[in-house]
Amino acid sequence: MEVLEAIATTRAIRRFRPEPIPEADLATILFAASRAPSGSNRQLFRFLLLRDDETSRQAKALIGGVAREAWNAKRAHDGYDRGSGGDMSSPKARTAQAMQEFVDRYEEIPVNVLPCLIRHRAPNPGEGASIYPSCQNLLLAARALGYGGVITMWHAAVEPQLRELLAVPDGVGISACIPLGRPVGGHGPVRRRPLAELVYDGGWEKPAPWAVDPPGTRFAQAGPPKS
Amino acid sequence: MEVLEAIATTRAIRRFRPEPIPEADLATILFAASRAPSGSNRQLFRFLLLRDDETSRQAKALIGGVAREAWNAKRAHDGYDRGSGGDMSSPKARTAQAMQEFVDRYEEIPVNVLPCLIRHRAPNPGEGASIYPSCQNLLLAARALGYGGVITMWHAAVEPQLRELLAVPDGVGISACIPLGRPVGGHGPVRRRPLAELVYDGGWEKPAPWAVDPPGTRFAQAGPPKS
Repeated sequence: MEVLEAIATTRAIRRFRPEPIPEADLATILFAASRAPSGSNRQLFRFLLLRDDETSRQAKALIGGVAREAWNAKRAHDGYDRGSGGDMSSPKARTAQAMQEFVDRYEEIPVNVLPCLIRHRAPNPGEGASIYPSCQNLLLAARALGYGGVITMWHAAVEPQLRELLAVPDGVGISACIPLGRPVGGHGPVRRRPLAELVYDGGWEKPAPWAVDPPGTRFAQAGPPKS
Repeated sequence: MEVLEAIATTRAIRRFRPEPIPEADLATILFAASRAPSGSNRQLFRFLLLRDDETSRQAKALIGGVAREAWNAKRAHDGYDRGSGGDMSSPKARTAQAMQEFVDRYEEIPVNVLPCLIRHRAPNPGEGASIYPSCQNLLLAARALGYGGVITMWHAAVEPQLRELLAVPDGVGISACIPLGRPVGGHGPVRRRPLAELVYDGGWEKPAPWAVDPPGTRFAQAGPPKS
């Protein structure tokens, strides 16, 4: 698959078929992840996989449990069942249904990847430059092989239990949790705000009139569906 | 270019030809950057370009100045001119020479991209998941079009002056500075530690024997050249 096409069609995938990912494909995906840059090329990224052994199943259950709690709270708090949420064809209702199915079936997702960072200094916002590029490589390679996933942060709510269960040492950050599998349905184009709203030239909010989206681009507002 | 090939050959580029990047190519590169995921799809990433206007030239001079200071200090502190550094064919000496040329000619690099994050909560290590995936998309798209760059953090040392010069508001983080241009020389394969050292299966440091690098992979130790 051509790289620009892969980039333009690597969407967040939250509905998965239950079949496992062959190890050869996982190796290709993780090789791609490990090609990412990191600060001073220190390569302090590590990729901890949760698959089908007993410990991994326990870890996935911890994450699935907190994902359901977090989603149920958000569903109520953000009013997903009010307004257009009552119309099952609305974007809001479809988002809610997809999220509900995602968390309800979390433990069936064949693979979770925990991208971890061995910290050589105190936790700070810039450290992500040494771990999140690898996550994007991972998602793009998965896309190229017909898999999908999404960067999630639910694990943070059960991090003490996860660290103990998986023997993750002090000084190592668990930077995300990426469920991976074969998607139900296809990979449509990624939709974002128009490029003109995201690119500045020569100063903050200075327009970049050359920053035009390709012909036929469809846009999406930021954040979860409104109203 | 095929996505897995792009991922495997997107190296840090630090030597650039002076020719500008056509705006159509910049648009393609930034479109790719904007396809990246971000937390709750909030799309709080912004891409501030420094090109050839007077303000941008001042900003590049600020960053170039601090880059030279930082590199000169590191060159002395880390002993780049001792040991094998005296042998101009050694990896250490070649790294030092490449870095010296990089900082000495910083202002000639045609484009700098400042990926910025509009913060909706206090700065934290996880916020990078909303900005650094876009940096990797940007570098991969640049690679596909024959350009290259590298994620740098030198800007942090002149951040107050940069913020004032570019009118970057409070609450916005400047997450990196990525110089971009047409490379001098080619794009060789990325080299990293063997995959077996970076991938764990079912627990910290639990081996993943299936995580094998493709045949013919050449490896590189972590961090800058030693001895």
